[in-house]
Amino acid sequence: MASTSRADYPPELSQEEENYLLSNLKDWSIAHGLTVRPAPSFVQPAQDPSGVLATTAPVTLYPSLFPRSCFEDGLAIQTAYNELYSAIARDESWLQGIVGELVDIDDFVANLWQTHLEVKKEGYVQDLSLGLFRSDYMVHQDPSQSDAAPGLKQVEFNTIASSFGGLSTKVSALHKYLLTIDAYPASSSAIIKENALQQSKSASSLAKGLAAAHTAYGFSQSSRPLCVLFVVQDGERNVFDQRHLEYALLEENGVRSFRLPFGETLSHTQLDSDRTLIYTPPNSPATTYEVTTIYFRAGYSPEDYPKEEDWTARLHLEKSRAIKCPSILTHLAGCKKVQQVLATPHSPHLKRFLPNGKVASRVLETFASIYPLDDSEAGNEARKLATDPSSATKYVLKPQREGGGNNVYRKAIPPFLEKLPETHWPAYILMEMIEPPPLENAIFRNGELQRGGVICELGVYGVCLWRDGNGYDQKGEILESWEAGYLLRTKGDQSEEGGVAAGFGAVDSVCLVGG
Amino acid sequence: MASTSRADYPPELSQEEENYLLSNLKDWSIAHGLTVRPAPSFVQPAQDPSGVLATTAPVTLYPSLFPRSCFEDGLAIQTAYNELYSAIARDESWLQGIVGELVDIDDFVANLWQTHLEVKKEGYVQDLSLGLFRSDYMVHQDPSQSDAAPGLKQVEFNTIASSFGGLSTKVSALHKYLLTIDAYPASSSAIIKENALQQSKSASSLAKGLAAAHTAYGFSQSSRPLCVLFVVQDGERNVFDQRHLEYALLEENGVRSFRLPFGETLSHTQLDSDRTLIYTPPNSPATTYEVTTIYFRAGYSPEDYPKEEDWTARLHLEKSRAIKCPSILTHLAGCKKVQQVLATPHSPHLKRFLPNGKVASRVLETFASIYPLDDSEAGNEARKLATDPSSATKYVLKPQREGGGNNVYRKAIPPFLEKLPETHWPAYILMEMIEPPPLENAIFRNGELQRGGVICELGVYGVCLWRDGNGYDQKGEILESWEAGYLLRTKGDQSEEGGVAAGFGAVDSVCLVGG
Repeated sequence: MASTSRADYPPELSQEEENYLLSNLKDWSIAHGLTVRPAPSFVQPAQDPSGVLATTAPVTLYPSLFPRSCFEDGLAIQTAYNELYSAIARDESWLQGIVGELVDIDDFVANLWQTHLEVKKEGYVQDLSLGLFRSDYMVHQDPSQSDAAPGLKQVEFNTIASSFGGLSTKVSALHKYLLTIDAYPASSSAIIKENALQQSKSASSLAKGLAAAHTAYGFSQSSRPLCVLFVVQDGERNVFDQRHLEYALLEENGVRSFRLPFGETLSHTQLDSDRTLIYTPPNSPATTYEVTTIYFRAGYSPEDYPKEEDWTARLHLEKSRAIKCPSILTHLAGCKKVQQVLATPHSPHLKRFLPNGKVASRVLETFASIYPLDDSEAGNEARKLATDPSSATKYVLKPQREGGGNNVYRKAIPPFLEKLPETHWPAYILMEMIEPPPLENAIFRNGELQRGGVICELGVYGVCLWRDGNGYDQKGEILESWEAGYLLRTKGDQSEEGGVAAGFGAVDSVCLVGG
Repeated sequence: MASTSRADYPPELSQEEENYLLSNLKDWSIAHGLTVRPAPSFVQPAQDPSGVLATTAPVTLYPSLFPRSCFEDGLAIQTAYNELYSAIARDESWLQGIVGELVDIDDFVANLWQTHLEVKKEGYVQDLSLGLFRSDYMVHQDPSQSDAAPGLKQVEFNTIASSFGGLSTKVSALHKYLLTIDAYPASSSAIIKENALQQSKSASSLAKGLAAAHTAYGFSQSSRPLCVLFVVQDGERNVFDQRHLEYALLEENGVRSFRLPFGETLSHTQLDSDRTLIYTPPNSPATTYEVTTIYFRAGYSPEDYPKEEDWTARLHLEKSRAIKCPSILTHLAGCKKVQQVLATPHSPHLKRFLPNGKVASRVLETFASIYPLDDSEAGNEARKLATDPSSATKYVLKPQREGGGNNVYRKAIPPFLEKLPETHWPAYILMEMIEPPPLENAIFRNGELQRGGVICELGVYGVCLWRDGNGYDQKGEILESWEAGYLLRTKGDQSEEGGVAAGFGAVDSVCLVGG
């Protein structure tokens, strides 16, 4: 099997080749909306007060090499992940256990849970939920076994505001275009070729998910026109990514949508007596809309709730009869803690949500093991792995509580634990390191080109529409579930954060290698 | 019949309505490539040395009111104009007469003609010619007869580098989108409505014209891959307009094209022994291409020829076996002087090129009359019109030689002529004023909004592919001819120039009114 990393990739470019590639990349990206609003460090707001300038989104010059088997595995497993996370979101009592471990240390989780409880007190009036998920992976290849097949290991699972579905569709088209116009030198033609590139269908497919919820909502209860509401952050620089979903929703599905800054929720929406959510567009207050689906592209982080009123707004939306994408329980299902307990070896949780053993074991393969350091069965295993200098090299030791201290890596773990009283060990978890194969690429950002080692993260989108159970005897049912395209996000291997729009990475597409 | 100008158009907007319209306009335009590179006055080149910033192209907020009958007339007559100008381009001896009157006063025309003669000496080796034309009109409505039906009067006919075919397709889609999302207030819904808006098909249709020439060229003579060559200006800010044609050429027709700055023609192209034009892409010199079609988006103005070598380049291209869009004779057919002699009342010229009297008379109706002030039949008529204070109000007196002095308008004409010795009168022409109905709109440019009176120019694109005759007994034949969409270009009624990219106007689309 071909190795993912190759000394001859990406190809070296002559100055003329680079000029050709870049001039075509710059024009194509602007002509097709593969764009972001420029960072304030690039264009000062005072220079462009009305915000009409845009620039090429951070992109890679080349599609990054990616093992074909891993890519196919990631796509194939997405519907299992849809099933898993929609089952978690439907299992309030299980989630309560998770949240119970977090409420004291995480205000944000506590507030979300409290909001859920308040709605529950009055009773939920919408039993449909929509998930536009993204499961993020890295390729893992054990460096000690050079002939080992690469596999996917999950980095995180996003249940709210999964971004880049719009730009991902564009960047894979860009790389395809650059191939078509011979912007990649002939020397790379055995690698970058038609059937190695994969067009991401994410923009269309996620929009189709919103349209499915919109339709499933049914007829208007209030004789108003229906709409989808994009709840967004103010001054979003990554606005075109979201806009491409809106345009696909309108053009391909005929569904109207509006953008509502989260902080203005209470000014422009209200609940009817039956908790139908009514949106009043500020530009035409005479025509009000009934909201079928709330798509959160805001509200996922504590920074989105600077005022107490913002929690009132979240409660107000959650109470409504609109379908939430996501509901608060679905949002909570995306907690790191959920990932951690699922990925604990010998954990019974996965079986609970994925009764089909074959499906569960395929999902399990994508987990990087996460061990507690307590006296459970997994904990005892972890103590052995962490104290043995040879096995410890494959792990990272992390404090249980986020923000609670620094990580300890690999061979530093055994001496660290030796000095630590064993009673303090349970404050840490031991996590398998994901070892991505070394890769190179070039990232184009703000007009500058950065070459070098990179790390790629594959995100696979999933659309899932389900009906909640009644919490007692009915477990609910999945109405729609599909894999919805992919994102490749690539950052320099020196950078610590993966957010492309935040300036630390780029959108990318795959160039598949291997059988 | 409904009047084109209406006191209630465009509608007044509340601040909220304006915010909604503009935020949607700004995002849509960037997401769809309705863009230009920013002017140096907006973004200094030093701030963005690699040229990655772009901004919304100057656009109108609303589609401008336009009489439906005029719009339909303009589209319907385009194939007649295709026939007319391709016939002129095929009639070298007639063109020689026109050019003969210009060579002494116009170096540019003289150089073009000289270049043609040099190619002719060796013999042309390509008898196919492509025209991507644009016929520009204004609506004329006699202000002294308020019930007179509006008609189209031609402003000019472009035979080279007819621009905005790319952005025109985008702006009509923008206005349609703004209508769909209710960005136009309900008060205007009787005017701005689905069937009043017209999607311009110009980008696709012009690209299809280039593809038709590419195909008609036939197989490669040199076993090389074939391509179309866009000959362009350096640092073109209106690059996306051109790029949209390139993308349509590739995506909808599968035809490869390259952009070649006119000044680099001799470095990257060469003629084979049979005058096949070979293009060597600087980025991959090992793969050379045979050029089927040269599309000039440069070379139309004296400023494009700063060096003697630039004329050598034009000669080199004209000599080649590639199909020229346009050929030099076609380029010359676009001279103002040609328009002038065609539009002279009682002129025999139109009949020469359009033998079908019905077709000729329809074309004639779109001419604003242009009279010489000599002792011809038309000249005698003109002298009467110009010296009578009541008829003079409908005319402008222009010096024959461009740049030769100032125009004299309307009632100032009779006293002006009274003071001028009659022997000097023939140095002037008398031209019917085009009287566009008063219109209002708002133009969005560089983030600023300008409202007020506007003047609209309708451009109708035409594609024409023809075979030249042999200059003796064969008159050639038209192989393809179609109307190729439209452009509406709108400027403030105070400005003197109509070039949108140059900063004096905006791209627009029509909102048809009247039966």
